[in-house]
Amino acid sequence: MQIYRYPKEVDWAKLTQRPEMNIRSVVPAVQSIMHGVKNEGDQAVLRFTEEFDGLRLSNLRVSDKTISTSQNEVVPPLKQAIGHAFDNIERFHKAQLTDYPELEIEPGVVCWQKDVPIDRVGLYIPGGTAPLFSSVLMLAIPARLAGCPNIYLCTPPDQNGTVHPAILYAARLCGVHEIFAVGGAQAIAALTYGTHSISRVDKIFGPGNRYVTAAKQLATLEGVAIDMPAGPSEVAVIADKQANADFIAADLLSQAEHGQDSQVLLVTDSPELIATVPIAVENQLKSLPRADIARQALENSRLLLMHNIEECVDIVNYYAPEHLIINMPDARQIAQKIRNAGSVFIGSLTPESSGDYASGTNHTLPTSGYARNYSGLNTRSFMKTITYQELSSEGINRLGPSIEVLAENEQLHAHKLAVTLRINAVKENKNEY
Amino acid sequence: MQIYRYPKEVDWAKLTQRPEMNIRSVVPAVQSIMHGVKNEGDQAVLRFTEEFDGLRLSNLRVSDKTISTSQNEVVPPLKQAIGHAFDNIERFHKAQLTDYPELEIEPGVVCWQKDVPIDRVGLYIPGGTAPLFSSVLMLAIPARLAGCPNIYLCTPPDQNGTVHPAILYAARLCGVHEIFAVGGAQAIAALTYGTHSISRVDKIFGPGNRYVTAAKQLATLEGVAIDMPAGPSEVAVIADKQANADFIAADLLSQAEHGQDSQVLLVTDSPELIATVPIAVENQLKSLPRADIARQALENSRLLLMHNIEECVDIVNYYAPEHLIINMPDARQIAQKIRNAGSVFIGSLTPESSGDYASGTNHTLPTSGYARNYSGLNTRSFMKTITYQELSSEGINRLGPSIEVLAENEQLHAHKLAVTLRINAVKENKNEY
Repeated sequence: MQIYRYPKEVDWAKLTQRPEMNIRSVVPAVQSIMHGVKNEGDQAVLRFTEEFDGLRLSNLRVSDKTISTSQNEVVPPLKQAIGHAFDNIERFHKAQLTDYPELEIEPGVVCWQKDVPIDRVGLYIPGGTAPLFSSVLMLAIPARLAGCPNIYLCTPPDQNGTVHPAILYAARLCGVHEIFAVGGAQAIAALTYGTHSISRVDKIFGPGNRYVTAAKQLATLEGVAIDMPAGPSEVAVIADKQANADFIAADLLSQAEHGQDSQVLLVTDSPELIATVPIAVENQLKSLPRADIARQALENSRLLLMHNIEECVDIVNYYAPEHLIINMPDARQIAQKIRNAGSVFIGSLTPESSGDYASGTNHTLPTSGYARNYSGLNTRSFMKTITYQELSSEGINRLGPSIEVLAENEQLHAHKLAVTLRINAVKENKNEY
Repeated sequence: MQIYRYPKEVDWAKLTQRPEMNIRSVVPAVQSIMHGVKNEGDQAVLRFTEEFDGLRLSNLRVSDKTISTSQNEVVPPLKQAIGHAFDNIERFHKAQLTDYPELEIEPGVVCWQKDVPIDRVGLYIPGGTAPLFSSVLMLAIPARLAGCPNIYLCTPPDQNGTVHPAILYAARLCGVHEIFAVGGAQAIAALTYGTHSISRVDKIFGPGNRYVTAAKQLATLEGVAIDMPAGPSEVAVIADKQANADFIAADLLSQAEHGQDSQVLLVTDSPELIATVPIAVENQLKSLPRADIARQALENSRLLLMHNIEECVDIVNYYAPEHLIINMPDARQIAQKIRNAGSVFIGSLTPESSGDYASGTNHTLPTSGYARNYSGLNTRSFMKTITYQELSSEGINRLGPSIEVLAENEQLHAHKLAVTLRINAVKENKNEY
């Protein structure tokens, strides 16, 4: 962890530079996977699964029986904890459902909006050493609340060719309709083009490695939407001298243990804190199973000593972190000055892990500075908004003459005619439904 | 216009195929423009303006004086009509601003959301034979309502190297901060990378030709967000035998006159209507200034006779039109069955031109079937949603144990530690801010 004291604004760009996911280098390989799945469907998916996961599967779809059995393979304390997280995530995401009123814009002109679920959505859950059931909750709960009628989940098969019971348990709890033991770019390709086993979807959600990220990018060229651009995970912490260095160390390490390309940033006005945090980090690393990964991530990480808290806020807004922890007594006021961040954790007792798992907020958040222009995942991400308008005879009489002037000045005469014909019909009392 | 009677479902894909904007063929040229502007800034922008627009400009920025003068160059009836549209669009888009309540998810765990304006937004208005002031209103009104502090507008210079007064008038009315006489891919490049004259932005909005569309796609690889993928404009009309064929003809022509790659679709259960509409279209074409463009567009267009209205609804949901006109007495009920559309026009007296100009809804809508997975432009398109959470000592005591279980099962031990340390501190009455 590098320490920088009172950096000049001209150096902020360099100090907040992020480790890059090198997507471009894998694009040719991913293109060839996409191409294969587009042309050969399941056969290609099975072939790539054999090639990359070393598994000959006969079925991609996880059977109902396997899913049922998994319900008994999850220990009760984990079930209870998943249930606790489920309740909170559901509560927060249910509040995001919006009913829009009809608006009488002027007499006889009524407009309104409606959020309509996306028909078919694909959720991707990465593999790895541990089952990421928390990501299942974060993707599938809003999908179900949005009312999506077709929710499919893809996740790489484990070494036995099956899916971890905790994933299956969470997926069933959330109402996922179909689960497929397919990972990597071949999963994204199947969701993009459809195969015999796996339906094509309208939007793909979820995190993944470079191959998955590249495949999602390519999917957007085929008419499929994606949740957001992906990059390595990151946290920024703003703290003052009152902060507990151990809390901060654990928060920084929570992020660092995610992956070697994670980035953590401490921004403070306290020379003491900037000296004590690295010691606390070293101490905690000793007992951390994923210390190797965390150490590599810490090489991308920086402790920045600033002149005052205002400057801390400025550089954080400049950085636009995915996660922002504000560990100060007046964290609430500081939070009001934040313009760019994915999710904000307020006060000394709100670690990032609360939002990663169970406070209720979503943990699928914009990385790589995308907090400047993207929202984190929410229930509306699984819907689209349709607008409606209805004019009565009074409405067309009031609005029509203005539309005629506007259309004429844009030289769009059929636009004008469509209005004129209706105004004339109303004069003659015709066609007024 | 081709007529198809009772097409089988297996043929729907072919019948609803859209004319494609051939983006790929212009990508190399656009890449070279992007590259030039990235490296040479204003100089490259001026050079490309000379090359493509045939104009040697000395300034890219439209001066305050020019903008002020333009206010007197717009005739009062047009000012009045623009004002009418402005009021309605503002009213509908203001209602889209959302205040989210704080939610106590469980005792001591408070979560909330806030929509925060995107800092810098770029609006693109295409050139052409007529000034598209309506697009200025549609982009700039929600940008201003969202509270974006930096709203920039780029539009190609006209033959005198200036911008049409009606564009300048609308832009000032809407509170645009800076206007630049730059068009094409070089405008998008300048907004993406920033130049001496033109600031880099976080998100780019607005329609454009293939070059602009390709440049916007490339911009997304540089950390800039865009409003939505673009394609040729389109309308579908559902009508029954009671519909006035002249209304429908004018609605179809309103879309067809936009451009030769526009697509119009009439879907009806009435054999009479499908016979009378082409005659009405031919009649109206005779007096239409843009008849040549419209005729070309009509070649991409289809009249589909279906067995009943339910089937009309099904094929429309399959097609996912940008604009949908429902011209029937029970249009409201039918509208409730629509799952995929950008904007819906209800009843015989609501032409597409009402929403194109002045009903209040936005006319920047998803094309090319993207109504399946994208919303039209709205005030939230100019904002991002940040989530917040704050745990009290009660909150961490209640939530902490579940997070510990979840983190341990995902093998993320620092995540667990960040909670454990806080639970222990609360036990000892420490650090409870």
